[in-house]
Amino acid sequence: DAKKIFLTLHDFEQATIFVNLNATHRHALIKILSDQELADVFDDIDEEPKKIIGLLEELSPKRASHILNLMYTDNVADILSVMEIEELATYLSLMPKDDAEELRQLINYEDQTAGALLATEYLAIEPDCTIGEALQRVKQEANNAETIYYVYVVDDTEKLVGVVSLRDLLTNPDDYLLKTITNTRIISVHPADDQEDVAKMMRDYDFLALPVTDVFNHMIGIITIDDIVDVMDEEAISDYSGLAGVNVDQGTINPFLAAAKRLPWLITLLFLGMSTASLISHYETLVAKASVLAVFISLITGTAGNAGTQSLAVAVRGIALDEEKSMLKMIFTEILIGLLIGTITGLTIFIIVGIWQANWLLGFIIGISMMAAITVANVAGALIPLGMNKIGVDPAVASGPFISTLSDLTSVLIYFSIAQIFLSNFMNHH
Amino acid sequence: DAKKIFLTLHDFEQATIFVNLNATHRHALIKILSDQELADVFDDIDEEPKKIIGLLEELSPKRASHILNLMYTDNVADILSVMEIEELATYLSLMPKDDAEELRQLINYEDQTAGALLATEYLAIEPDCTIGEALQRVKQEANNAETIYYVYVVDDTEKLVGVVSLRDLLTNPDDYLLKTITNTRIISVHPADDQEDVAKMMRDYDFLALPVTDVFNHMIGIITIDDIVDVMDEEAISDYSGLAGVNVDQGTINPFLAAAKRLPWLITLLFLGMSTASLISHYETLVAKASVLAVFISLITGTAGNAGTQSLAVAVRGIALDEEKSMLKMIFTEILIGLLIGTITGLTIFIIVGIWQANWLLGFIIGISMMAAITVANVAGALIPLGMNKIGVDPAVASGPFISTLSDLTSVLIYFSIAQIFLSNFMNHH
Ligand SMILES: [Mg+2]
Ligand SMILES: [Mg+2]
Ligand SMILES: [Mg+2]
Ligand SMILES: [Mg+2]
Ligand SMILES: [Mg+2]
Ligand SMILES: [Mg+2]
Ligand SMILES: [Mg+2]
Ligand SMILES: [Mg+2]
Ligand SMILES: [Mg+2]
Ligand SMILES: [Mg+2]
Ligand SMILES: [Mg+2]
Ligand SMILES: [Mg+2]
Ligand SMILES: [Mg+2]
Repeated sequence: DAKKIFLTLHDFEQATIFVNLNATHRHALIKILSDQELADVFDDIDEEPKKIIGLLEELSPKRASHILNLMYTDNVADILSVMEIEELATYLSLMPKDDAEELRQLINYEDQTAGALLATEYLAIEPDCTIGEALQRVKQEANNAETIYYVYVVDDTEKLVGVVSLRDLLTNPDDYLLKTITNTRIISVHPADDQEDVAKMMRDYDFLALPVTDVFNHMIGIITIDDIVDVMDEEAISDYSGLAGVNVDQGTINPFLAAAKRLPWLITLLFLGMSTASLISHYETLVAKASVLAVFISLITGTAGNAGTQSLAVAVRGIALDEEKSMLKMIFTEILIGLLIGTITGLTIFIIVGIWQANWLLGFIIGISMMAAITVANVAGALIPLGMNKIGVDPAVASGPFISTLSDLTSVLIYFSIAQIFLSNFMNHH
Repeated sequence: DAKKIFLTLHDFEQATIFVNLNATHRHALIKILSDQELADVFDDIDEEPKKIIGLLEELSPKRASHILNLMYTDNVADILSVMEIEELATYLSLMPKDDAEELRQLINYEDQTAGALLATEYLAIEPDCTIGEALQRVKQEANNAETIYYVYVVDDTEKLVGVVSLRDLLTNPDDYLLKTITNTRIISVHPADDQEDVAKMMRDYDFLALPVTDVFNHMIGIITIDDIVDVMDEEAISDYSGLAGVNVDQGTINPFLAAAKRLPWLITLLFLGMSTASLISHYETLVAKASVLAVFISLITGTAGNAGTQSLAVAVRGIALDEEKSMLKMIFTEILIGLLIGTITGLTIFIIVGIWQANWLLGFIIGISMMAAITVANVAGALIPLGMNKIGVDPAVASGPFISTLSDLTSVLIYFSIAQIFLSNFMNHH
């Protein structure tokens, strides 16, 4: 009865309850569920693989191994790939040999690639079947396949020939041959392809699943849209984290752990900030004579840092959108934008400072420094992610804090160099 | 023949080609495609609605109206909702009355809500049908429905009773009644629900489509996963843009337009930065006497700004994850994290400055100011998005540039207040 109620819940709800029960209650639940029911629950647990391993360890090794064998291979591979080697060997040894072999191959695919997302439970049917026969196969395998909404047409060498949607199967006469309605314009990915590219492809083509093939076009598995939705979430969080210079998915409310995650970047940037401080210290005598210069340090560094952060974010997005865009063109555009923004901001501050301090030369120094500092920060903000992309580093890890700390340095250099040049005149007016 | 080749392409490819053809070639293509084929192309154009309107205007009003009538209602509503009122009236007047009426209702839903995403082309079947009859209906309506992979079971008052997947239809005996296999544990959304919440729900439940119902549980339409994938993309870009203080989807390479998009935030923050400058100007005499103070302005403001940006991003993400989290607890945690980070960073800089400047009192002033500035920035970084969320503003618009410009102000205030206090001692040592 409790079992019946539990099973009327959606998979996601079952999994959520299962994870949040205390060990005693979970133990009771485990006892009344069949292996297949339990495997379905495990398939839908949205937790770190390490945590799922802990839950598996609440079962006997034999049952845990059977559960793993009943789960979808993409989920199993996620779990096994972070498992201790002895535990992995135990579970695999308790499985049918070819299943164990298949999993051993799946866990070799690198994280964040198509290979790490693929499931091997797809429907493969020969092109010479009739549609009626194909529908029979769909019905038979409906409970095992990750999706039955696409049927993959493969020849006798396992090569992918094309795809047929269940929609097409249902709307065509049963006695037609499958090959007559097969869409042979195959869109597929390779196991080493970046998960982001796979996600973009599924977003553009509106597919519910995508085949993964090797270089000889042999079918390896499929990637389903629900896993791509998770990838998009993951990539969005990682880009957001990159821009902020902190992993925003702390998954902890422990302030010590949280601080430990934020400090590395902060301390690194502290040393970059020290270069700026030491640069300013070279101009200490200048500041001593014209203390008003100190008034505008944070205004110039801050505004340039803001402009740099903007251009960084635009460049990272631009690279993600269109990798073929010419670097030179992008840099040239950012120089122009920087000059435009810098000129307008510089003019604004020239007028404000000129009036406020009743000193138009000071206004001019601040204005021209602001313009140059903004232009440089703008170009740096675009140049850095472009360079990172060029050398194969994900440009999204370049952070706003990094670009603004770097631009503090360039801005201060520009500001005090210009101030120094005008120093003699300046001292006369002040 | 050209038509045949074009139609073997995937919908997305057709749409991409269609949009990128020059007007003459597009005109030739338009002439050979049937209205339904053209409607399918228009359904898959991934461009701004304004641009799609331009493409529709290349057709006669009558044909354009017919195309709109053949497209999926969610896509049509997107287009019509930004159309000039006269043009809208023309197209609607050329449609069957009830279709026009339906569209008139759809365009009233607010942007970024479930209502703006729903399509009315779903399969609704009565619970007393047999499965065989239901499958017949699926086959009949396969070409009109947005998805045939779910069948919505509605009673004679149009109330949603439950959902049956096509998988279940295919794996159960044809003579069973639909109601015996209907999943009555309905997960649905209301038209006014935020699209982000809808996306989260579909991500968690792994649905391919979700029903939209009114408060009386009457079925209004469905939201399909392909549109949710676009929502996730849109929300990710908007969060990323928010953090950077710039719309990263410029969609322009015109530097003047790009500059115009970046300037509003920059100039606004320039004025906030002016407050900081004017605050420092109050301490000009202090700086004149102790010019070494100027050396550390950018280090303290920069580091605090970086810490504030980190805590802002973490808070925005935290709010998105769990809106029920207690505000007080989050703030308390950020105070603790700020104190921890601030203490470690402050100690580091105390030692560095003490040694470098051979002045431990200066090191102490810088260290303690750093600690306080970081703590304040950290708390502000969390407090601001929490407050915005409280008053119903999307916290994701709070930007890194904003928090770092604000923290420039608080940091400078802290720094010079502390320096002022220790001034007499300090001057003795320097
Ligand atoms: Mg599932
Ligand atoms: Mg995996
Ligand atoms: Mg990536
Ligand atoms: Mg799409
Ligand atoms: Mg999966
Ligand atoms: Mg990325
Ligand atoms: Mg389509
Ligand atoms: Mg819409
Ligand atoms: Mg939103
Ligand atoms: Mg999911
Ligand atoms: Mg749609
Ligand atoms: Mg959001
Ligand atoms: Mg700054």
